[in-house]
Amino acid sequence: MATKETAAVGVDLGGTSVKVGLVDSKGKIVRKAVLDTYAEEGPDRVVKQIKKGIHEVLKPGGYKIKGIGIGSPGVVQLKDGIVENPPNFPGWTKVKLGKKIIEEFKLASFVDNDANAAAIGELIFGAGKKFDSFIMITLGTGVGGGIVLDKKLFRGSHGFAGEIGHGSIDYAGPQCKCGSYGCIETYAGNNYLTARVKDALLQREDSLITRIMREEQIPLTPKLISRAMEAGDEFAISVVDDLGRKLGYSFANVANILDVTNFVVGGGVAGFGKRLFTAMEAGMKERVGKSLKSLCKIVPAKLKNEAGILGASALVYYKYN
Amino acid sequence: MATKETAAVGVDLGGTSVKVGLVDSKGKIVRKAVLDTYAEEGPDRVVKQIKKGIHEVLKPGGYKIKGIGIGSPGVVQLKDGIVENPPNFPGWTKVKLGKKIIEEFKLASFVDNDANAAAIGELIFGAGKKFDSFIMITLGTGVGGGIVLDKKLFRGSHGFAGEIGHGSIDYAGPQCKCGSYGCIETYAGNNYLTARVKDALLQREDSLITRIMREEQIPLTPKLISRAMEAGDEFAISVVDDLGRKLGYSFANVANILDVTNFVVGGGVAGFGKRLFTAMEAGMKERVGKSLKSLCKIVPAKLKNEAGILGASALVYYKYN
Repeated sequence: MATKETAAVGVDLGGTSVKVGLVDSKGKIVRKAVLDTYAEEGPDRVVKQIKKGIHEVLKPGGYKIKGIGIGSPGVVQLKDGIVENPPNFPGWTKVKLGKKIIEEFKLASFVDNDANAAAIGELIFGAGKKFDSFIMITLGTGVGGGIVLDKKLFRGSHGFAGEIGHGSIDYAGPQCKCGSYGCIETYAGNNYLTARVKDALLQREDSLITRIMREEQIPLTPKLISRAMEAGDEFAISVVDDLGRKLGYSFANVANILDVTNFVVGGGVAGFGKRLFTAMEAGMKERVGKSLKSLCKIVPAKLKNEAGILGASALVYYKYN
Repeated sequence: MATKETAAVGVDLGGTSVKVGLVDSKGKIVRKAVLDTYAEEGPDRVVKQIKKGIHEVLKPGGYKIKGIGIGSPGVVQLKDGIVENPPNFPGWTKVKLGKKIIEEFKLASFVDNDANAAAIGELIFGAGKKFDSFIMITLGTGVGGGIVLDKKLFRGSHGFAGEIGHGSIDYAGPQCKCGSYGCIETYAGNNYLTARVKDALLQREDSLITRIMREEQIPLTPKLISRAMEAGDEFAISVVDDLGRKLGYSFANVANILDVTNFVVGGGVAGFGKRLFTAMEAGMKERVGKSLKSLCKIVPAKLKNEAGILGASALVYYKYN
């Protein structure tokens, strides 16, 4: 009889849905379940949904299961798999999620913060595989970050390290919802970006963006900016170039401080494609110390839509100690 | 017979003088020699001066010598104690300084970059002793930095980590001699600071600084600003407050990225005293993430004038592996 192939379970716990995948050792999702989170019904119900999802992907059997990884919002106490105060999960305070999963499945289980899981996912399965050290940036509503040093996620003194999005590039810049000013998130976060572009569009009635919005009656989104850029609209191009350069400036700051020169960039806004990457690299190289200029590398993240599941399953393969 | 007390030799290699000290295990300099570097005569002469200084402090005997530490400008290859291209040392390219010292004295010898030695000095003998992780900032002509994580100096991927001075707080700020813009060094470096104050003074004929400069025929220095501040001069106070806040903003950036919240600040400008520290703390707390606010600690460096010698001798006590 042939030896069974090994696989790990990855659980991407979100505010609206729980996504569960069975992931083989090469990072391929071989089975998948998506369930409602029912976050508003409190932690017991959420845990029930998680268990249900895991049972679903395990039931058909056929694999040697190495363990279960869960990427969760909120602060996670790694040692005991305790999830504290995930935003948008009412009634949650502290839940011993790891313990509950181990009791149910008798399998090694790892719970980590979802941003950390994303970085670990790129490290184990994605673009970070080839680097010893890299900075992970996820462009979305916020600008998420993760710092990988010598193949280990760097967590800082209190578990909060990696908030690259709240490094400021202008102390007198726009106020960020974190309380600071000019954080790179206030330039690259989806809502901040579209709000700024909307303002600028008032002076640019000629932009293709304005025309599409009017003709198709659709709202302004990063996707629309991207579409106009691809169609050659000058204003949209300038938005992407400016965004890329500013991201590059913030990467240069991080590289100057940490001497880590590899950046893996994922998330929606990264859909601006090659043009954004070229601008990021130009901005970074312009501002980074002389000795680091030739070492700068900015590459797109590899785990796209399934990054949540893959990152969570990667926790099982990651060396925590 | 009583056991001999142990001591280590610390060599502070500078462009104009070589300072050598014999340092006991508590960080007290028990003997000291200061010699001309003769940098312009080339590396052989410089090495001769270093050896001469070490012999001078060792000659009287009486101590069990644990080893020799050398803090050097330039890039240092730790493993072989090779010093590369120290600025202002003509004809120097690569010199196997560590090997030459071991051959002469048959003692364990450690060569490291002088900024790193300063951070290690604070870690072993100074204000960093009580912290597991801290950021070392040295305010002088430049703004030097060092990152200590879990009692170890963090060097980055290529040995260049810790350039806190070249983290930018304003992407559109003044150009720095490193090529970037708005580096905190362009606000806090001695020359940048005095140049900016000089400009501002053109509008402030009433400032005590202007009066002292005129009456005593002395140039503008950080020391003079400090003197006017202590005398209650409003403009000098505003300069120190503004400087402190900007430093605090840059510390907040570092803390947000690294989740290291302890800062040890040394060097000349730190002579602005309590007022500067209060402003730094205010600036940092205003801009740092919510979870870190109550954790921010900014303390003055302990090793003052003799920081160079003490830092170098600390290399002997530091665990390199």
